[in-house]
Amino acid sequence: MPKSVSFDRKEVLEKVTKLFWKKGFHATSMQDLVDATGLNRSSLYNSFGDKHQLFETALSHYESWQSQTLLNSMEQGISPLESVRLFFLTIVNNIKNDQDHKGCLISNCTTELANSDQKVQQLLINNKEAMVTIFERKVIAAQETGQIDSASDSHLLALYLYSNLQGLHVTALLMNDQSELDALVEKVLQGL
Amino acid sequence: MPKSVSFDRKEVLEKVTKLFWKKGFHATSMQDLVDATGLNRSSLYNSFGDKHQLFETALSHYESWQSQTLLNSMEQGISPLESVRLFFLTIVNNIKNDQDHKGCLISNCTTELANSDQKVQQLLINNKEAMVTIFERKVIAAQETGQIDSASDSHLLALYLYSNLQGLHVTALLMNDQSELDALVEKVLQGL
Repeated sequence: MPKSVSFDRKEVLEKVTKLFWKKGFHATSMQDLVDATGLNRSSLYNSFGDKHQLFETALSHYESWQSQTLLNSMEQGISPLESVRLFFLTIVNNIKNDQDHKGCLISNCTTELANSDQKVQQLLINNKEAMVTIFERKVIAAQETGQIDSASDSHLLALYLYSNLQGLHVTALLMNDQSELDALVEKVLQGL
Repeated sequence: MPKSVSFDRKEVLEKVTKLFWKKGFHATSMQDLVDATGLNRSSLYNSFGDKHQLFETALSHYESWQSQTLLNSMEQGISPLESVRLFFLTIVNNIKNDQDHKGCLISNCTTELANSDQKVQQLLINNKEAMVTIFERKVIAAQETGQIDSASDSHLLALYLYSNLQGLHVTALLMNDQSELDALVEKVLQGL
């Protein structure tokens, strides 16, 4: 009978996600995944599939975390606009304060894989649509409270927020000045 | 005496840049570079150095092209703001109409390499500063003609344009609707 391997699936997934996030898809080897998780190859294969399937699972895991961060920022008893601000500042500060300078897994793999990998591209399009939907809900709520002009196109504003989120992920990796980064977030929000 | 190899350096560099742009740094092998350029390994090494040095040269080549596109858009006898619009539309349409969906070499390698490669990170920071300087010159010119409020912080607006350029590179790869993309560019410019 094969030796049974027990592990915390969520904990392993956190380690896998962190590794892909740091190194990207191509630069991460199965051996790196073995080293990071402490599991052997066959346990990884049996539980998650091959490297690509593992990557897809990691991407979904990261997407849930990002959407959840956005949703959590909306449940703090603050105004809709303030919750969008809190979300942007949380994300940008995470990037700035991360010693590994990993940026955002979504923008990293959009640029690394979206042009060559149909399945990953579809996952990323789904993520874009999910994030735009959450942003749009927020914009409509802010229009109802009068924080944003109700004549504005809420879908376009949501897309503007999504695109700026991607831009800030790249820009924040190349900026050292925290106050300048905060001012940039403020400038983006003034566009609403 | 070794056989002398003659080739058009600029033409080879175009091919190398296109390949790195399409596949990224890690996924591009020396063999891919040999296949794409038609040169053998030793000619590539002798003329450009190793894969990393070749990548750095390709990155500088791409940066010159991007800055030149921005500068050219400013010499069309149109207003400063109109020239920024023309630049954004040129870049976004290039991404949309590119059959390889390569996106932007700068944002691709910012996300792929900036966290692990000090030399590339410095090249990218230099590029960011060069682009922000050109954008700022444009904003100041628009402030002088009254197209942009002269009380606005020209450096912050330039940084906002740079960050949005990076965001649009990622977003455009995941969007199919051309009119929505044009509306997004318009929305970004309204923030000036």
